[in-house]
Amino acid sequence: MMTPKIADFLARNRPRTPCLVVDLDKVEENYRHLRRALPRAEVYYAVKANPAVPVLKRLCGLGSRFDAASIFEIEDCLAVGAAPSDISFGNTIKKADHIARAHRLGVGLFAFDAAEELDKLAEHAPGARVYCRLLVDNEGAGWPLSRKFGCSARMAADLLVRARDSGLVPHGVSFHVGSQQTDPGRWEAAIARAAMVFTDLRERGVELGLLNLGGGFPARYRDSVPGIDAFGEAITEAMHRHFGNAMPETLIEPGRGIVAEAGVLESEVVLVSRKDPDDEARWVYLDIGKFGGLAETMDESIRYDFATDRDGDPMGPVHIAGPTCDGADILYEKTAYRLPLTLKAGDRVRIDSTGAYATTYASVGFNGFAPPSEYYL
Amino acid sequence: MMTPKIADFLARNRPRTPCLVVDLDKVEENYRHLRRALPRAEVYYAVKANPAVPVLKRLCGLGSRFDAASIFEIEDCLAVGAAPSDISFGNTIKKADHIARAHRLGVGLFAFDAAEELDKLAEHAPGARVYCRLLVDNEGAGWPLSRKFGCSARMAADLLVRARDSGLVPHGVSFHVGSQQTDPGRWEAAIARAAMVFTDLRERGVELGLLNLGGGFPARYRDSVPGIDAFGEAITEAMHRHFGNAMPETLIEPGRGIVAEAGVLESEVVLVSRKDPDDEARWVYLDIGKFGGLAETMDESIRYDFATDRDGDPMGPVHIAGPTCDGADILYEKTAYRLPLTLKAGDRVRIDSTGAYATTYASVGFNGFAPPSEYYL
Repeated sequence: MMTPKIADFLARNRPRTPCLVVDLDKVEENYRHLRRALPRAEVYYAVKANPAVPVLKRLCGLGSRFDAASIFEIEDCLAVGAAPSDISFGNTIKKADHIARAHRLGVGLFAFDAAEELDKLAEHAPGARVYCRLLVDNEGAGWPLSRKFGCSARMAADLLVRARDSGLVPHGVSFHVGSQQTDPGRWEAAIARAAMVFTDLRERGVELGLLNLGGGFPARYRDSVPGIDAFGEAITEAMHRHFGNAMPETLIEPGRGIVAEAGVLESEVVLVSRKDPDDEARWVYLDIGKFGGLAETMDESIRYDFATDRDGDPMGPVHIAGPTCDGADILYEKTAYRLPLTLKAGDRVRIDSTGAYATTYASVGFNGFAPPSEYYL
Repeated sequence: MMTPKIADFLARNRPRTPCLVVDLDKVEENYRHLRRALPRAEVYYAVKANPAVPVLKRLCGLGSRFDAASIFEIEDCLAVGAAPSDISFGNTIKKADHIARAHRLGVGLFAFDAAEELDKLAEHAPGARVYCRLLVDNEGAGWPLSRKFGCSARMAADLLVRARDSGLVPHGVSFHVGSQQTDPGRWEAAIARAAMVFTDLRERGVELGLLNLGGGFPARYRDSVPGIDAFGEAITEAMHRHFGNAMPETLIEPGRGIVAEAGVLESEVVLVSRKDPDDEARWVYLDIGKFGGLAETMDESIRYDFATDRDGDPMGPVHIAGPTCDGADILYEKTAYRLPLTLKAGDRVRIDSTGAYATTYASVGFNGFAPPSEYYL
């Protein structure tokens, strides 16, 4: 989002493009808003969304906890002063030596979704609290998580019993309704399934304490999405309905929901062209594309909003692509976009809500192009 | 390809995974083979396929020329001793100041496919030789180039006349039949279209000298592909048929065809799991995935071949995924793959023919994971 601070910075400095500018006050505002919307849930910021030191520092100062996808992200959190007890090793896919390293560093909460992972945890993080990820439906998500993560409820229950029997603490279950989830109602079915696992395990003598509600909280891109309060209400109601008075601790793992709207990518038009004089649609090539950070345009899943200095001028249809010699480096060819007819090479184009995922997906240097520079204000 | 040199290196050093090991002798062998298959064509190595210094050095020593996608790739080529006159700035999408820098460095051959690009070239590289890229059909390609590049034949002819009128040298036309093109017959229609542009321009007083046949020469992954000689024959025949005795100079831009089969990615199994005890298919999670370099598995386009130390054991169906917390980081879910039933976490898995594109597509550190290490033997 183009906050006054970002607008001033861009106007005063005219930094080289492509670059990402993030307003940390907006990060803080989003964090506080999420806390208010779900006051009972601990917030574990999903570091993968934007692991930049200034973001981690600001959130750490606000008392946020952290959901880490790798031992390297754990080390990044510790480096900004996070307590090991405030970090969850949330990736269900972990190398044995990374588990051991996290355990030595004092991390005590781990995700898993498979027997082999549980065996690794029992051996390399004895006594740790573990939670099992359930496979749930991702319909309604802009960036679905598919079947890669989680296991069936039946398997989860068996694995949590096995966790207890192998010296781990079977602490709870988790799920993820899919990133950029725009339907607040989607948490309900997942919460219901989780509640059944709690009941099943209680009957088998295992008392779970934690429900990890995952992330998925959407950001506003081109199309509007329900506000975070709608998600808070839907989740709170569903928790009451399915857990009643036996309410477990809950945690959420927002990433995109905290940082996406805090960032703006400034890019430059490299070329505007037509394939034939009779074509109505133009091709607009930017100096950032799918391999410079905008990987979430894959299958045109995330539809960004573009702004230019010529936005008052008459508009016409465009396809939008990146600067590399790669046919896959197209941002939008099927989604109908329109940009000013006066747009030309050298013009600046601002891409809104790019504070999440736009820097870490960037390639090391595909076609020789360096990743975008980053500024945190 | 697992050459004896690569096998020895892996056995002796057991390098940390994930890592790419490239046999430079195999690079040289592929280069020589291509030269023999198309003796009349100059070879411009497509640097983007693998811009590692040892690859550029070896090819430079063999007399290869270079197809650069950016000013940065041009500087990499010059740094290993390539002459500016042996470099083509092959990207049709170039910033004005990058054109000027290339021109100052002595590069004199540029691609374009649009009026605005031509104007930039006329202003910033006056007198340069330019060639216009034609839009052609990419059917049969494993990694299609779509409609992102090129323009219609009619527009190309008009632009080449305009090139002459603006002080540039209208030197020729180019096309690209799509990367990993497995049908040698696909060049014919493109060559026919190019020949018509040559004729059209001759009638308008412009004599073109160059036909750039592009790249697209395939590598052997899981499925076999026709040998390079079949492509050489098909192209040579088509050139005779459509150009007769008025044969222009030709050049090719192989990237994948030179380096892919020279490399092996060594990775490690992080987890093998089932989603439910009744599932037949297992999920195999490797320490490299779509965001660690294997981006060409997008839509399961490029289907790699996997080898393990347990390959004699009974096999079963698998889905294969990368190590990140991202639902899109799946290599193969629809394509039927089978791996040994005995496979488990910690086992090594070798991914064949990964010398092209597997390093440059790698993200800077998605989920905290560094790009694969690289070894050139």
